[in-house]
Amino acid sequence: MKFIKGGVCAAKGFKASGVHCGIRKSRTKRDLSLIFSEKEASCAAVYTTNLVKGAPIAVTADHISDGHARAVICNSGNANTCNAGGEEIAREMCELAAAGLGISPEDVAVASTGVIGQPLDIAPIKAGIPELCGALSYDGSDDAAEGIMTTDTKLKEVTVEFELDGKTCRMGGIAKGSGMIHPNLATMLVFITTDAAICPDMLKKALSGDVKKTFNMVSIDGDTSTNDMVIVLANGMAGNTEITSENEDFAVFMKALNSVNVGLCRKIAADGEGATKLLECRVSGASDEATAATVAKSVVCSSLLKAAMFGADANWGRVLCAIGYSGADVDPLKIDVSFRSKAGEIGVCRGGTGIEFSEDEAKKILSCDEIEILVCLNSGGAGSLAWGCDLTYDYVKINGDYRT
Amino acid sequence: MKFIKGGVCAAKGFKASGVHCGIRKSRTKRDLSLIFSEKEASCAAVYTTNLVKGAPIAVTADHISDGHARAVICNSGNANTCNAGGEEIAREMCELAAAGLGISPEDVAVASTGVIGQPLDIAPIKAGIPELCGALSYDGSDDAAEGIMTTDTKLKEVTVEFELDGKTCRMGGIAKGSGMIHPNLATMLVFITTDAAICPDMLKKALSGDVKKTFNMVSIDGDTSTNDMVIVLANGMAGNTEITSENEDFAVFMKALNSVNVGLCRKIAADGEGATKLLECRVSGASDEATAATVAKSVVCSSLLKAAMFGADANWGRVLCAIGYSGADVDPLKIDVSFRSKAGEIGVCRGGTGIEFSEDEAKKILSCDEIEILVCLNSGGAGSLAWGCDLTYDYVKINGDYRT
Repeated sequence: MKFIKGGVCAAKGFKASGVHCGIRKSRTKRDLSLIFSEKEASCAAVYTTNLVKGAPIAVTADHISDGHARAVICNSGNANTCNAGGEEIAREMCELAAAGLGISPEDVAVASTGVIGQPLDIAPIKAGIPELCGALSYDGSDDAAEGIMTTDTKLKEVTVEFELDGKTCRMGGIAKGSGMIHPNLATMLVFITTDAAICPDMLKKALSGDVKKTFNMVSIDGDTSTNDMVIVLANGMAGNTEITSENEDFAVFMKALNSVNVGLCRKIAADGEGATKLLECRVSGASDEATAATVAKSVVCSSLLKAAMFGADANWGRVLCAIGYSGADVDPLKIDVSFRSKAGEIGVCRGGTGIEFSEDEAKKILSCDEIEILVCLNSGGAGSLAWGCDLTYDYVKINGDYRT
Repeated sequence: MKFIKGGVCAAKGFKASGVHCGIRKSRTKRDLSLIFSEKEASCAAVYTTNLVKGAPIAVTADHISDGHARAVICNSGNANTCNAGGEEIAREMCELAAAGLGISPEDVAVASTGVIGQPLDIAPIKAGIPELCGALSYDGSDDAAEGIMTTDTKLKEVTVEFELDGKTCRMGGIAKGSGMIHPNLATMLVFITTDAAICPDMLKKALSGDVKKTFNMVSIDGDTSTNDMVIVLANGMAGNTEITSENEDFAVFMKALNSVNVGLCRKIAADGEGATKLLECRVSGASDEATAATVAKSVVCSSLLKAAMFGADANWGRVLCAIGYSGADVDPLKIDVSFRSKAGEIGVCRGGTGIEFSEDEAKKILSCDEIEILVCLNSGGAGSLAWGCDLTYDYVKINGDYRT
């Protein structure tokens, strides 16, 4: 398996586009994106667990309930959530895209992201559909990735090439991240395409299994969004024998999916609202995976630790504190903590107790833009990874005046 | 019942003091406090639920296990947590205070607050004990309140006068708040004294019952501290008949305790690290109290909402979002949301859907320093209150460089 370029257009038979239709006043950023498969594709999705759900979620769930789809349309600038008539608007978005593409509306998935609670005006979307469909191309992934961004500062794309059954397959994803992101199922917008052949049930199994270790382990700010989803389209155009059971090919597929998802998780965390640093908490020595995951998540979610990481302050007591209130059953007196980055690694706590270390060296290590927080519970063989970012002035700036 | 002055020295027979002994390098703030009762007092406490606990907690729990105490000693500047030999240091603090006061070490409760993971040097405490004991006075509450502060910017004292059994009783509390505060039992340092007579069991019952509605409903940053406790001393010097059952006097006592605790909660939230605004989420119309409490807590804990309040941005979608992911079983389509302050009240959401409102008026209301977020679930008669604060640049500043 190797990492390549191409995003959602790397796999055979997928085109994408992104345009500015006018949902956002500023013309500097695209606000409407489309992904299209030339062939009917298996489709699976996971959605936010927030009880307050965006209108597009019900429509997408309905449209892909047969396990198939051919297109995804997504706007930014308005979440189409907590407003009157949102579901009709989401359906109309699918109908407009379907008409432009010459396919059935039931083959279109829809997503929205942006401000909650304001009516989404269908007029600019209607007006923009011809341009959006006309712009579809085999190198449109970047445009589509831009069109789904909210406060993101960077495009997020990850693409891999792998082999199934002697055939070259590709899988690529784009993501929208930044704010209102917290580990609890499908916590951002992620669209993934692949030309591997896999039946809907196995695609669903692969996605549901993987998000537990990837998108559920990312937190920017502890707020589980109302709108977010991860959706995968697999159109089978690579020509491999369709995966219909948990065979070796399924394992390869899972590995490819995990590589794309981990890559996107890291990009989402690194580009969290206001973030200057990617935090990766790597827990080892846990009695079981659930304990490891609980500890890892709690550490990357701690506002105090996130602020300390912003200040390159090796305040490991906040790591211990976050482990202690995580709810995981751990023995505090067995916990070791180290910090690691490309500048080196430094142990700061052994057996739950502080050890002497060089503050200068710690500062150097924590001043890098990717920090690993290494926690060993010394109680077993299980581990987990979680991703987050530092808490900065800019997070406050962005969110203190996002809407107006 | 009326609010008066005096803090922990308002009740008969209580003295307090606070000195600078040198745990903190800067001489501008006291760092060691003492509260002393002339008579043996009933004593009850609640402690943090964090698995990683400060060394003083075990010592205090041990010393008050007989339901009685006469003194509380507390230092700031070092949490005496996650370090070698912390428990011995905590015991030594009690022994030093006891020797200075001429009482038994088992009658002394101890607390520490400050940085985690650094050894607490007993030398400055030992050197400071004579001055600390010598400074004890009937108007020493302010000094004691200062000596327990960490990043607090304001003294926190609340005092009430009430009547039990024809006798005038007083109750006063001091608190340390600011950071690492999140609703999960005893999430800050609070010391309360009263001259009411109440047996240890009933005192414990009163305290345990009240913290669920008060200190457990405050969040500054979602981090449940390792060290925090609420401790009450009741020395009976008011001369009322001792409360030994859930009679009418107990109800009056509970009301007094609740008034002190709510007052301290509001002060703690308003002076949260970096805070410019007190947030009070007032949930009504819930099917039961647990649901109301879950919703209220989730709203005041949302980083996104807290940042929006800092920016005086009526982004009520974040209120809905926080309710939706709270875990409470609510019907999103029944939720009403309003904002209220001394500048007025404005409805922004009815039945889970945005309604038109004046942005100018909302801005005016949200620009005050005490904001109520009113949530009606329209599903029953239960309610709850929770307190928090806005998320500001200064929270990041304070916590990005707290330790070094």
